[in-house]
Amino acid sequence: MPEPNNWHMEKAQIPRPDTNQFLARALYLSVDPYMRGRISAKQGYAKGVEIGDLMPGGAVAEVIESKHPNFREGDLIETIQFGWQDYSVLNGDGLTRVDVSIGPAHAWLSYLGMPGITAWCALNNIGQPKFGETVLISAASGAVGQVAGQIAKNKGCRAIAVASSEEKLKWCKNLGYDRGVNYRTSNDLVREFAEVCPNGIDIYFDNTAGIIHDAAMQNLALGARVIIVGTISLAEKFDEPDMGERFLRQILVSRAKVQGFLVFDHLDSYPEARRSIANLHNKGELKFKTDFMDGLENMPAAFLKLLHAQNMGKQLIRTEFAEGLPE
Amino acid sequence: MPEPNNWHMEKAQIPRPDTNQFLARALYLSVDPYMRGRISAKQGYAKGVEIGDLMPGGAVAEVIESKHPNFREGDLIETIQFGWQDYSVLNGDGLTRVDVSIGPAHAWLSYLGMPGITAWCALNNIGQPKFGETVLISAASGAVGQVAGQIAKNKGCRAIAVASSEEKLKWCKNLGYDRGVNYRTSNDLVREFAEVCPNGIDIYFDNTAGIIHDAAMQNLALGARVIIVGTISLAEKFDEPDMGERFLRQILVSRAKVQGFLVFDHLDSYPEARRSIANLHNKGELKFKTDFMDGLENMPAAFLKLLHAQNMGKQLIRTEFAEGLPE
Repeated sequence: MPEPNNWHMEKAQIPRPDTNQFLARALYLSVDPYMRGRISAKQGYAKGVEIGDLMPGGAVAEVIESKHPNFREGDLIETIQFGWQDYSVLNGDGLTRVDVSIGPAHAWLSYLGMPGITAWCALNNIGQPKFGETVLISAASGAVGQVAGQIAKNKGCRAIAVASSEEKLKWCKNLGYDRGVNYRTSNDLVREFAEVCPNGIDIYFDNTAGIIHDAAMQNLALGARVIIVGTISLAEKFDEPDMGERFLRQILVSRAKVQGFLVFDHLDSYPEARRSIANLHNKGELKFKTDFMDGLENMPAAFLKLLHAQNMGKQLIRTEFAEGLPE
Repeated sequence: MPEPNNWHMEKAQIPRPDTNQFLARALYLSVDPYMRGRISAKQGYAKGVEIGDLMPGGAVAEVIESKHPNFREGDLIETIQFGWQDYSVLNGDGLTRVDVSIGPAHAWLSYLGMPGITAWCALNNIGQPKFGETVLISAASGAVGQVAGQIAKNKGCRAIAVASSEEKLKWCKNLGYDRGVNYRTSNDLVREFAEVCPNGIDIYFDNTAGIIHDAAMQNLALGARVIIVGTISLAEKFDEPDMGERFLRQILVSRAKVQGFLVFDHLDSYPEARRSIANLHNKGELKFKTDFMDGLENMPAAFLKLLHAQNMGKQLIRTEFAEGLPE
């Protein structure tokens, strides 16, 4: 498990843009589980961070100086390639223009951004929910889980929340989840899942791996889909083998599908996902909670809060430049 | 692990058919890994066998007395519901008519029957092989593996055999497999798979679970498909949890799909599968080895031979009534 002193902050001259570049300053910095993988020695989807490197991370930022023909001062953008810093020089590749008429700037890092699109693509493209099915979601009040639960309800499914506190489960109830299970206080998660999913789990939206995964695998319905979206519960033993019970017999007997998900494989679905989520939000059918913490210097604290499941909703860092923006 | 004295043979009067029934006598009895599941206390796809019950099993049989309008003496049929016995009264439901112009009678229990259809449906419907991909197959010289490997080659894939002896691997080479790995003599299966699959495993056709599965999961290519067809290596610890390393991070990082397969979910594909396999065989592009043992009394021995991976090809029991039939 990482600790606060794994990072240190450096001050430097604000960089200047070259031709076809612009300088942007962060309004909101995103705090995401995938960052755990980037500081691991194990192979991940992307190159790991070397000691001394800038931490990778996404942000919503404002263009403050531009030598790029397509961007001008005051433009708002969202990019995954900003880093844990206040200022960044960018070349305009692979970013999203933030349209505040669709949702507030910070939402482009949550329900209108990667977490929301992850929820939509994983549930629809891999899970393929059918009316009346039971969908169990771990980290149900997190950035991805909140959206996934509400999409599942919108599809006519029963949605079951798994979270780490009564406060989070209360929020999940408010979002429309039918039932909730507190995995930290449960004495027998296998039995509790059996009780709240009497016909078995048709879709398990797995944001966590670990004990929640294990109990879900013992309650699969015939033809179940298990979507491996995140493995945050393995944060503590990230570089060790994950030992425990395996469920190949259950996969065989239920003819279940266990599939790994990465949002970047679903670029074609982004426009539809964002449109669909914005539409739900406009109709008042999508609620969302964001956990703001102030100041770049608090990035390590915010990240550790997330790894310890102490955040309440999407975890963000708000910089001084976001002052006065709507929440 | 079951032992010979788990079974005993009973003699009884040969039953007589009632209206809409017929009496058949077995020519060949099928010996299959799924039978291990049926004598387990754990939940399987089908109801387990109680102590004192008839062991379930398939056969190719000859109708010797009929009160059924659609069957007459001398008809040959294949059915999964015959049982470990010489004679059975059947009602004609869910069986296949054996056409010896397509292949010899016993082939309807192997490449023209459930094992062949399993290989075809699992590989094509779940694995969806593409030209040039690498397909790793465990129990590669078994009833399912022999057919799967040759279909993979026919699709333009590299086929890698995993088996328990040099003799089996030699046969796999003869079938067209590109490379072979002996899992019993290997010191480091993970490294060996990496050597024979330098671009990773695109499809792992898993007939075994266990150590072969574990090593395959550490060599997945991006977008890999892992088809869980059988778990025979768990035969010894069938009623205990299967403990060991889990591979959720690998599934996530490779965006792999791990899916359980049961042939009965693919009834719609049977005609195409059988036609396609018969066609390969007729063109001389499908070789197949069958391991015959004589006499009903040897069913337990044949089954244990299979569980201990000592069979060479599809394991069958040939009864006295099959005398003189072509092999």
